[in-house]
Parts: sequence; structure tokens; C-alpha cells
Amino acid sequence: MPNKFDPGFGQKYAHNTKRIINKDGTFNITRKGIRNQQFQTLVDMPGTRFVALVSAFYILVNILFAFIYMILGAEHIIFINSYHLPDFLKSFFFSMHTFTTVGFGSIYPQDPLTNFVAGMEAMLGWLFFAIATGMVYRRFSRPSARLLFSNNALISPHKNGEALMFRIVNRRPNVLMEMDARVMLAVDMDEGVRVNRRYFNLKLDTSSIHFFPLSWTIVHSIDEDSPLYKLTAEDYIHKRIEVLILIKGFDETFSQNVHLRYSYTYDEIVWNARFIRNFKSLDTGQIELDIDSVHNYETLS
Amino acid sequence: MPNKFDPGFGQKYAHNTKRIINKDGTFNITRKGIRNQQFQTLVDMPGTRFVALVSAFYILVNILFAFIYMILGAEHIIFINSYHLPDFLKSFFFSMHTFTTVGFGSIYPQDPLTNFVAGMEAMLGWLFFAIATGMVYRRFSRPSARLLFSNNALISPHKNGEALMFRIVNRRPNVLMEMDARVMLAVDMDEGVRVNRRYFNLKLDTSSIHFFPLSWTIVHSIDEDSPLYKLTAEDYIHKRIEVLILIKGFDETFSQNVHLRYSYTYDEIVWNARFIRNFKSLDTGQIELDIDSVHNYETLS
Amino acid sequence: MPNKFDPGFGQKYAHNTKRIINKDGTFNITRKGIRNQQFQTLVDMPGTRFVALVSAFYILVNILFAFIYMILGAEHIIFINSYHLPDFLKSFFFSMHTFTTVGFGSIYPQDPLTNFVAGMEAMLGWLFFAIATGMVYRRFSRPSARLLFSNNALISPHKNGEALMFRIVNRRPNVLMEMDARVMLAVDMDEGVRVNRRYFNLKLDTSSIHFFPLSWTIVHSIDEDSPLYKLTAEDYIHKRIEVLILIKGFDETFSQNVHLRYSYTYDEIVWNARFIRNFKSLDTGQIELDIDSVHNYETLS
Amino acid sequence: MPNKFDPGFGQKYAHNTKRIINKDGTFNITRKGIRNQQFQTLVDMPGTRFVALVSAFYILVNILFAFIYMILGAEHIIFINSYHLPDFLKSFFFSMHTFTTVGFGSIYPQDPLTNFVAGMEAMLGWLFFAIATGMVYRRFSRPSARLLFSNNALISPHKNGEALMFRIVNRRPNVLMEMDARVMLAVDMDEGVRVNRRYFNLKLDTSSIHFFPLSWTIVHSIDEDSPLYKLTAEDYIHKRIEVLILIKGFDETFSQNVHLRYSYTYDEIVWNARFIRNFKSLDTGQIELDIDSVHNYETLS
Repeated sequence: MPNKFDPGFGQKYAHNTKRIINKDGTFNITRKGIRNQQFQTLVDMPGTRFVALVSAFYILVNILFAFIYMILGAEHIIFINSYHLPDFLKSFFFSMHTFTTVGFGSIYPQDPLTNFVAGMEAMLGWLFFAIATGMVYRRFSRPSARLLFSNNALISPHKNGEALMFRIVNRRPNVLMEMDARVMLAVDMDEGVRVNRRYFNLKLDTSSIHFFPLSWTIVHSIDEDSPLYKLTAEDYIHKRIEVLILIKGFDETFSQNVHLRYSYTYDEIVWNARFIRNFKSLDTGQIELDIDSVHNYETLS
Repeated sequence: MPNKFDPGFGQKYAHNTKRIINKDGTFNITRKGIRNQQFQTLVDMPGTRFVALVSAFYILVNILFAFIYMILGAEHIIFINSYHLPDFLKSFFFSMHTFTTVGFGSIYPQDPLTNFVAGMEAMLGWLFFAIATGMVYRRFSRPSARLLFSNNALISPHKNGEALMFRIVNRRPNVLMEMDARVMLAVDMDEGVRVNRRYFNLKLDTSSIHFFPLSWTIVHSIDEDSPLYKLTAEDYIHKRIEVLILIKGFDETFSQNVHLRYSYTYDEIVWNARFIRNFKSLDTGQIELDIDSVHNYETLS
Repeated sequence: MPNKFDPGFGQKYAHNTKRIINKDGTFNITRKGIRNQQFQTLVDMPGTRFVALVSAFYILVNILFAFIYMILGAEHIIFINSYHLPDFLKSFFFSMHTFTTVGFGSIYPQDPLTNFVAGMEAMLGWLFFAIATGMVYRRFSRPSARLLFSNNALISPHKNGEALMFRIVNRRPNVLMEMDARVMLAVDMDEGVRVNRRYFNLKLDTSSIHFFPLSWTIVHSIDEDSPLYKLTAEDYIHKRIEVLILIKGFDETFSQNVHLRYSYTYDEIVWNARFIRNFKSLDTGQIELDIDSVHNYETLS
Repeated sequence: MPNKFDPGFGQKYAHNTKRIINKDGTFNITRKGIRNQQFQTLVDMPGTRFVALVSAFYILVNILFAFIYMILGAEHIIFINSYHLPDFLKSFFFSMHTFTTVGFGSIYPQDPLTNFVAGMEAMLGWLFFAIATGMVYRRFSRPSARLLFSNNALISPHKNGEALMFRIVNRRPNVLMEMDARVMLAVDMDEGVRVNRRYFNLKLDTSSIHFFPLSWTIVHSIDEDSPLYKLTAEDYIHKRIEVLILIKGFDETFSQNVHLRYSYTYDEIVWNARFIRNFKSLDTGQIELDIDSVHNYETLS
């Protein structure tokens, strides 16, 4: 068979292994012993959880400083008011006023030590919010190219034979260009002694496009050179066929290269079907593309 | 015909479709169902609208907090002044003082709850301005290579035949390098059953240059291998010729790759004309380039 | 010998030179006359030292401004309190309140000049913290791909002969893709007049992989074309063999290219050994990779 | 002659034109009609001028707001002090306190309108310093690879003939990798009708290196295929020889590609000389490179 190679997964996957690439593009692999990066973790978590965490940390820091001010003597913090506040609350609010540099002055430090600690706290406040600013910026500035892959890959009539095809569309307003597709096949092969997982490149009719304003139907002709040649639907199941997809492109909006992964397993491949056209010409002379109909296909009799 | 391929537009454009690439480099396509990114939208809007929106949002947030303080009891906010302010205004100004961390102290919180809410508001103020800082930074830090394309593409005498040519110039102070041009032809082809839109690569005399301090005249010789060979001006109209252009380069100032798109339709192509030289040698031994005369051409008799 | 070339080290290394590439990927070279960049130095230092330095600088600036305010006359700074503060401390704390823009107002400027200087100091405070924010952001946002290289390179049985191999694994949660390995050999060669250090490319069985979720064993078959062909362990020592490694890849998390260097010297190469498999299939159908067992090998009898 | 091409300068340079590439890598070309970017200009100016400009703008904005407050009525701004301040100064200092959000509260707004304007000014202050932060960050975070080129290119004995060579060294602590050199020749050619400026690629013995910890001597052998073959020093002058250099590499510290330009004109080329070795082996087994001796050469008899 042609084009056998190792895309980086090795060939000793156990036979009961689930799909290699998950639907969100991650790998079906757990990795023990990872050295984590707290910064990245904070950047990757959902927005609400991030704000909650920042708030929690902010309150914690102020509680800590409240205790420091109480140790230094809460009587050195003047609260210019008839209202009475307990020592802890007075210290806690003073810390909040200081850490955020809001400094109303309704609560203020009196003696040298408290003044000095307050000055240092204000500086730490700046650094804290510097980190928060960095994280907030990073959350927003990362390229976030998102492709919509058709739910199914199809085996469709093509030229004089048939072809495996699927469709992708850019669902963001980002402009993507210079798209490049690589499609690989993962297949169980009975090699006598044991069943090995082997990988093959699938040759594409068009493997790269310059512009990507519409959807792109990626087509692998199942001809004599294809590792899928003459395989039946039963073979697909038995060999636990998985189509691995790697899409690369240039995100013009973020001026960065983007890489996207996807896969179709044998049960996501529909036989003898055809994609329905997902754009139309408007009377205004424009083309209108419907992103969500990238999935739509019709079964052929 | 040689070099037929699909640059990513498909071949089923209706015959009444307008130009493919608009003059600003966008595609003549509307896309339904796009998942928008608010951040990017804010970054892309004009500067004045951005400031107006930030201001509006800022005022809104402060109105919101004013109501929160009124619910907590406006009597807990002390206004140290003989001047009388209505409850809403007192709360609103207190919120402004807090959210921006300006904290004059002329209006200050008295009871624990108001103090705590004020402390949280100051933190949210930091996060709000963190986002604003990120957006402001992003607005300025994006590479903004802008090429000026000559208004027209010309059919000029060239060597022993003729050539299609157009001229580009960098109109920014950014240094652009390693420029690479790709020129394609979109053409209606009557293929019996229906008229299809087909695409061809146009071979260039020079398709890349290392340095780009002057203008660059991009030349396609119309020889026997050219899909434009022996076509008349009438053919251009009838076949709805569109010349698609993709320029890539490296923006040294921003250390990023840039991609630019442009197109000329049949009615923007001038026959039998020649570009006028747009730079001159000064007596000081320097070359002076006039950016805006990139458009200038003379008609040949 | 084939593939002799210069990877950039030159060939006149003295014979007593230690290893070329250190274990942390730096070069065993000191460079006199470097023009340093303070910003980069601050970004590269450990976090605690960075905070200490920022704090020290912050205190220094405030001491400086304290003296300026004393020269302008400390009596122009009003301290609204029964507590008595010496002039220096009053000026110092006033400076802190101003530089951080905390501005409690418990200490405030009275005359025009002090007011103006305070206004300028607040502006400088913003710029100072702008720089600090930039540094903090840069500390966190740099790609920090870290590969774990097996402690040893092995000479293992491979196909019908033997091969030099080592193993790498990604120890970060970052997703790395499109990995590319280049392996070179540095070897002392007695060329009559003098012993020169020569460099050779080592051909790899697989020199690039698309995906990198597991470990990657990089294999150089020691066949007739290899510069290691028929060398004995004694030759390795005598020729002061060093295997130089350059790994390139794309860090999807940071959307940036990463480059990593490593080397094995003759005393880090183990003869007649084999790597132990470092992942297993879980009953859940997932693969579990143990990052730290990338080092594990077994000696063959 | 082989390898004639256009690197992007055109061929109609007047004969009295000075060098093409200046010593700082800019081109000897003025460009009329450039659309400037204020942001970039501010980022590129020297640090002291930048701080001066920010300060000037800051003072100007505060003068502007002072007048706004005076129009609204300076009597609405309370100055809690026995000291008397003229209306303008009171308004100006209030503006400074507000714009920087320092808000001592020694000067505070009384009526609704002044309060509102102050709230808006504080917001504008944030945006102003957001822009300043962005600029400060950009100033520091740009890759700033600086290569030191030897002052002269040499014509040295090389193998059995001679070669044109020059030397470069990285003078920053940044790690540069995957260096790639391209060297071109600009030469006046008398082509009968007029003298044209022509360009040739010069073939290099080694045109790329993986690592760049030492200096790199770039060598063009002047053999039969070289456009410099058999040219005399007089020819160099008469043909106004200029050697154009383009160095590309990957800056590992900033994870970005860098491009550097340089040129040697005929009067910077030294005949019959040889570079002096600029590194030595220390007793510690390290190599020590002296960056500034990259220039040193000795004349051969």
C-alpha cells in the first residue's frame, strides 16, 4: 500500500482505543506529569469563571492586608465619620481603597508604618491589575479561527467513480486565506502477529486554495491508488477507519497562521449521498452563503 | 487551456454576478450565520465611534451602579458640602469617582455594605479599562500595510508583443520586503450546457522582489501560453474578464506577513497605453518617488 | 564522508573545548561587547527578583520625589492630622500617594508649584506602571514550549542493523504541531596538520511529524551512509562525538514557531539499550502517556 | 552574464545616484505622498522625545480642561485651604488631579455639571494612558535584532583563487537562528544607448546556517561564473559596484522573523586583505567571542 507513514501517533494503539482526534480537535490522550502554566490556564477558562476568580483573589488579598493593618494597629487608620466600623472592616475597606488606588480619603493612614504599607499595597495593586490586564488582553487577542466541518463525510459519485468528500466553512468574520488541507487515514491492519494501526495520506483533488470566502469541499477520489479502493462499508467498520484532517491557513485579521484538526470515524461517513449547494446568487449580483447549511446532504437512490 | 484551477470561489457563479473582489479587497459575498466576535468588531470600528461607544457604556455602568447605591440607601453616601445634590446624582457621581478610581473623597461611602460595593466597583473599573486598554492597543498595533494599486490595468506594448500590466506602490512608511505577486484570471466560459466561471493563473515576468522602496510594475506577457492570447476588447466584455490579484509580503515594521487582494474588471483595463515613470533622480543623488502618480499613464496612438 | 557542512560554529574549536550546546539549549560561548537590552533582561529574570526590583525602583523614585518636595518646601504639603510626621516622611508618603494615584487626600499639596509637580509625578507614575504592565505581560505571553529530552541517546538494534535514537515529549499543555527534527554530528577529525571539528547531517528515518500528542522517538539508522558507521565506543570518546539537535515546531496555543536545541555528548550515549514504552491504553479507550518515563530504557544483554 | 534580475529597484537609476542601501539599512529614496501613521511615528522616536511629547500633550489637555471648568464656573470647584489659588490654577490642578485619577480631594467638584465633566475627564485620562501604555509596550516589545557588519568587505585569497567576503555578528543577547544570507551586486552597465543599473545574484559558499552564536563570514568565490570575475579595482569604481546584502533569520527571543539590509560600495571594499580571527578558546573550555573585533583585518603583502 502506498504512502504509509507515521503522522506522530505511533502504531501500537490497542484495538479498543476510541477515536484519535476528538470533535473539538483535541487528542484522545491523557498526559500524566504535565508542567502546567497558571497564566495559560487562567486565559483559557470561561469569561465568567475568570471574573469570579479575579474577584475572589482580590477579596482574599484585601482580607490579608486587613490583618496586616490590624497587626500594625487599626487605631492608626482614621475613619472620618460618625458611623462606627469594627476594626476588621475599617482595615478591610482601607485596603480596598488602597489596592484599587481609589483612595477616597474617608479612611486614611495616620502613622509612618501604616502609610508605608499602604504605599506598597497601592504598588502591588498596580501589578495585580497589570497581570489582570495582560490576561484580559490575551483572552481577546488570540486568533480564534473556527471552521465548521460538515457533520458527515460522504461517499459520493465523482467523475467516473466515487470519492470521499466533506465540506468546511469559516464561521467567523475573520478573513482566512491560503488554506491548505491534509487528509490522512487511520486504519487497523491485521499484520499476522498483531493488529496494528497504520496511517496513510489521502490524495486530494485540490489540496490548497488561495481564497476562502465560500465553503470548501475537500475531495479524495477513490481510485486505484487510494487505500480506500474497493473497501465496503463493512470493511470501514471492521478496520475502524478514521479520517484525520489537518487544515492550515493564514488568518489575515490576526496576521497569524492557524491550524485546525478534525476527524470522521466510520460511523460518521454516509454512503451514496451528495452535498446540497449552500450558496445562491442574489438579484443584487452578490453571492449569499448560508454557513449552517454546510451540513446538508441528500441521499442518492 | 492551461493552468485551469479553483482559487476557492467555485465555478457556479450566476452570470449576473458582479465583480468577485471588491476595490477594498473584500469579497462580493454575504455570509449568513456568522458567529461574531464583539471584541474584533469594536477593534475594527472607526476611532470616534469607538470612543463614543466606550463613553456610552461607561455612563450606562455608572447609572446602573447609581441605582444599586440607591437601593442600598443613598443616605449612606456622604457628600461633604453645603451644596445639595439629589439622591440619584449623588449616587451617580459617587459611582463615577469610584469606577475611575479618582476617589476625590468629596463623596464617600459610610456603611459597610456601600463600602464593599464601592470596593468591588473600583475593581470592575480596572477590568473595564483593562479591556479598553487592550482594544486601544490592538487598534494601533495591527499591521496596516496599504498598497496603492494603479486605477487601471493597461494593455501595453511589451518586447515584441503586448502585456497586461498594473503598478503598485507602498503608501505607508512601513518597510515592506520579500513581495510576492500572484495574478489570476476569472473568465466566463461557454461550455455548451451552461456558462461556467473558470480561473487561470497568469504567468508573470517577475513574480517576486526582495525590496520594495519604489513602485512595482507587475507584467503578464500575453504570449501563446496566455489565456488572454488573441482576445479582443469585445471578448473581454463578453467573457466578463476579471483579473484577481493576491500580493504577499513581509512587513518589517510589524514583523508580520501581510496579504493584500485587489482586482481589475474588463472596464478597468485600458488598451494600448503605457505607464508614465513616477520617480526621478534628485541633484542630491537621491531618488524621489511620487506615490500618487502611480496611476498616471499615457495613451498610445 | 558525506554531508560535511558548517551549521554555524566554524571549524577551529580548540581541542579542549567543552560541549557545544549546553543542556539548557544555550551555547557554550561567552560573547564580549554585547549591547544589552534592559527591558529584555528584566523580562528574563525570575519573578521574585523582578518584583523586588520593581519595588526597589518604586521606593527610590519616591525618595527622589520626597527630596524634590522638601526643596520646594515641605510646609506646602498639608497633613490633615493631629499626628506629627517629620518633613521627609510627610514628603515621602505624599509622593507615594501621588505616584500610585491613590491620593487619599490626607496629605495634599497647597501651593501652585507643589501642585504642579504632584500632577507631573502622577503622570510619571502612569508611565512607570505602563512599563511594568508591559513587562508583566511579556513575561507571561512568551511561548514557553518545553520539551523533555530523554536523559540518554541509545544505540539500539533497529531493523537489520543498529540505530542512534533518543526520545522527546512535550511537557507543557501547549499544543505543538508540525514538528521537524534536524540532527547533526560534531566530530573531531585528525586532518594531518591539525585536529578540526567537523559537522555532518544525520539522516533520520522520520524527520517530521504532523501531530505530537505522544512522545516522538527520533531514529538515525547507522547504515553505510552514516558518519557513525562502524565506529566503536572508543571512537566516540576519542573523536569527542557530540550529537547536536534542533527541533522546530508550531505552538498552536501561542500561534508561534518554536525552536529548541539540545545535544548529547559521547558520555550520554548508552550502547545496546532500548527505550521502554511510555504510554498505555486505558480501559476507557484512551491512551495515557507518562511524561516523566520518557527517560526509561532497558539494557540489552 | 548570468543571474540578471530585478530585486525591486528598477534599472533606470540616474548615473549620479548615490548608494542604494544606506548604512542603517534604509533605502536612499524619498517618497512623496506617504500616508503617515502617528502611532508608529511616536513609537519610533527616541525615548526622551517620546516622554517630552507625552508630557506636553498631558499639560495641553489639562489647560484645555482648565478652560472648560472656568467656563462652567470656577466657583463650583472647592479648594479646601486657607491658601488662595487663582481660578485658572485651581481649575488646572483640579484637572490634573482628575485626569490622572489621583483625586486628592483637596480640590473637588461641587455642582452636578462639574462633577459630570470631571467623571468624563477621568475616563478620558484612562484612555489617554491606555494609548501611552500601548506605545510604551510597543517600544520595548519590538524585535530589535542588530547585526554588526564588518566595516569593510574584503577581496581575500580563497582556495585557489580569490573571494569577496564580509563578516557579521549578532551584537544583542537575543538568540538568532536559521540565518539566511542573500547577496546581490548592483553594477552600472554601458549598454550602448545608455548606462543602466543592473543587478546580479552572487553565489555564496554557504548561504544559510542553523546556529549563529559566533560571527559568520559570508564568502562569494570569484570564479568564472561570478559577475566579478576578472574585474579590477578600477572597474569597481567605474562600474560603481555596490554589494547589496539581505540577511534573514529567526529571533528566538521574540519568536519572530527578522530581516536586515546592508551594503558595501566600491570604496568600502579592501583588496588583498584577510579577516583576523575574533574568538579564542578559554582555559575553561569555553569559547570567547569579541563582538567589536568583527571589523579587524590584516592587509596581505
